[in-house]
Amino acid sequence: MSDPTPLLAHARQALRHSPVEIESAANPRLRHLRELLESGRERRRSGQTVLEGWHLLESWLAGGQPVLQLVLPRRTFQQLGQGGEPSSPASRREHGRSPSANPWQRVSPQRQPGAPIPSGNVASMNGNPEMVAQAAQASWLVLDDWLFDQLDIMPSPSPLLAVVETPRPALPASAPDHDLVILDRIQDPGNVGTILRTAAAAGIRTVLTTAGTAACWAPKVLRAGMGGHFVLEIHENIPLEQLKAQVGALPLAGTVLQDGQSLYASDLRQPLAWVFGNEGEGIDPELQARLGCRLTIPQDPGVESLNVAASAAVCLFEQRRQRLASAS
Amino acid sequence: MSDPTPLLAHARQALRHSPVEIESAANPRLRHLRELLESGRERRRSGQTVLEGWHLLESWLAGGQPVLQLVLPRRTFQQLGQGGEPSSPASRREHGRSPSANPWQRVSPQRQPGAPIPSGNVASMNGNPEMVAQAAQASWLVLDDWLFDQLDIMPSPSPLLAVVETPRPALPASAPDHDLVILDRIQDPGNVGTILRTAAAAGIRTVLTTAGTAACWAPKVLRAGMGGHFVLEIHENIPLEQLKAQVGALPLAGTVLQDGQSLYASDLRQPLAWVFGNEGEGIDPELQARLGCRLTIPQDPGVESLNVAASAAVCLFEQRRQRLASAS
Repeated sequence: MSDPTPLLAHARQALRHSPVEIESAANPRLRHLRELLESGRERRRSGQTVLEGWHLLESWLAGGQPVLQLVLPRRTFQQLGQGGEPSSPASRREHGRSPSANPWQRVSPQRQPGAPIPSGNVASMNGNPEMVAQAAQASWLVLDDWLFDQLDIMPSPSPLLAVVETPRPALPASAPDHDLVILDRIQDPGNVGTILRTAAAAGIRTVLTTAGTAACWAPKVLRAGMGGHFVLEIHENIPLEQLKAQVGALPLAGTVLQDGQSLYASDLRQPLAWVFGNEGEGIDPELQARLGCRLTIPQDPGVESLNVAASAAVCLFEQRRQRLASAS
Repeated sequence: MSDPTPLLAHARQALRHSPVEIESAANPRLRHLRELLESGRERRRSGQTVLEGWHLLESWLAGGQPVLQLVLPRRTFQQLGQGGEPSSPASRREHGRSPSANPWQRVSPQRQPGAPIPSGNVASMNGNPEMVAQAAQASWLVLDDWLFDQLDIMPSPSPLLAVVETPRPALPASAPDHDLVILDRIQDPGNVGTILRTAAAAGIRTVLTTAGTAACWAPKVLRAGMGGHFVLEIHENIPLEQLKAQVGALPLAGTVLQDGQSLYASDLRQPLAWVFGNEGEGIDPELQARLGCRLTIPQDPGVESLNVAASAAVCLFEQRRQRLASAS
C-alpha cells in the first residue's frame, strides 16, 4: 500500500472549500457519518456509503469518481500541513448540535478555491493530478482525535473515511456476452466482499445479487472487497424474473453436492453465468434446476464442503486457467 | 446437516453422570465456560476449548474423541426427553457462586451409570453407538434458557456447546513425505479457519503455524473451519528453526507479487510445503528467500491481489487438479 501523505498534502493545499472542524459528539454531520457507518437503512435512504482507510479511497480515486466528504482525525490533518503545523486557521469550527447558534462557531472566508496544485514531483507520488483534484473537491471534515477514535471503524495504518455516493448502475437492456457472477442469498459480509475481490481479480465485470445477500456497499463488505467493488458493475436485489432476463442464453454454472460433473472435466471457456449460493442452503432450488453446468469440486472424502468464497475462487480461477491454456 | 435430536436423546438416556442444572450467572462452572469462550489465555491455561453448535460436535464425535462437557439450554435438554417432558428430577441444580453453601442446591444420587443405550434403530440415526457413548460420558450442564442465551456464541440452528481438550499433537521427529501447509502470521480468525477447512478438503493432513497466526482452536476459527480441524494435525507457534526441520527437503511453495512463475505453468505434483503469509505483509522475508516454488496466480491487471484464503484455495486445488489429471 502506498503512503497517502503526498497526495493528500497536495489535495489539502488545493482545497476548494475550507475544512470543517468538528469538536462535539453532537455535531449533526458527525451524527450522519455515524449513521452511515452503522445503519444499512441510512445508507439506502441517503444513497451514500463510507470507505474506510486509505487503500479503499486510493482505489476509488483511481477510478476517477468524486468524493463527497473526506473525514480525517486532526492529527492526520495537521501532519498533512508542513511539518505538523497546527491546522489551517481558515477552517470552520463546528461544535454542537446547532452550529449556527453556537458562540464558538467561527466561519472564515474560503481559502483560495482552485489554488494551483503545489509544485513538486506529482508523478513521483502515489496517484496523479486528477486524483489530487478529486480529493480536493471533497468537503473535508476534521474531527478532534478523540471523536475520530470513537467511530466504529477498523484499525488501519492510515485511518480516514470517505463518504461517497453508492454506485447504482442501470441494468443493461439485454443479456451480456461476458461472464456474470450471481450471489444468491450469501449472508456473510466477509464472504460477499471476498467473492467480489476474487471476481474482480479473475476478470469478472458484472455481479448480480438476489434479495437476502448482504448489502455489497456496507463498510464490512467494502473492507473485504479491497477495492474489487470499483472495477465491477454491481446490481443488487435483482428479482428472479429480471435475473433470468440478465442471464439470457448464458449457461448457468454452479456447484452441487451430488451428481455434478468434475469442475476439472468441464469445459468452462465459454462465457458463463456463475451462481454462488447461501452458506447453509446452497443455490436456490429454482436456480439449481436451471443449471447448465452442474459442477463438483473434487474433494477429499469425508470433508463436507468448501466455504462459498473458497469455492468461488476455485471455480473462477479454473475458468481463467482453461482460457489462458487455450489462448497459449 | 443432520438432526442432533436422535443421537443426543439416546445419549441422554445413557448418561453416566447426572446432568448439572445451572440457574445462576455466578455459577463457577458457567464462569469457566464464559472464560473459555472469551479468553485465549484461559484456553491456553486450561488446555481446553469450546465447540459451538451441533455440526462441530458431530464432526468431533465422528473422530472418536472424548467430550469433557456438553452444555445445553434447558429447552433443548427437555426436548431430548420424551415429547418435551420436564428435565430429569435426578439432575443436580447449581445456583450460586458457592454451590455447596447454597440452600437451593440439591444433589441427587447418580442415575444408573452405564445404563444400556435405549433400544431403537441406532443405525438409522445420524451417528453410531460409539458417538452416543462418547456424548453420554461427557459431563452435561443444563443452563436456564436465559443464561444460555446470554453467552457470546453464534446463532445456530441447533445451539449447544461442547468443551473439549485442545489437541496438541507432538511434532514428528522428522520431516514428512507429504504436503504441509504453513500459516505465517495470518491474523484474521476467519481466514485461518477458512484455510484449515480448504486444506482439509484438498487432502492436506498437516498444518504448522508461526507465532502471530490467530490461535487455531479459538471458537471463531473453529466456526470457520467447519470441522476441518478434526482431520488435520495442527502444530501451532512453531519457531523458525523447528519449522525448517519439519519442512526438511520439501520444496517451499508460496505466492509472490513479483517475479513468480505462473501457478498454472508450474509442476505441483510432488509433495510441497505451502506457505501462506500475513494479510498485509505476505510471507516472512526469511521464508520468502527459501521459496523453491515462487508462484504467481495470473490475475486481471489493475486488481491488487487475492485474499489469502482465496489464494490458498486456488493453489491447493490447482495442485489437486494436477495430481488428479496425472493419475487418470
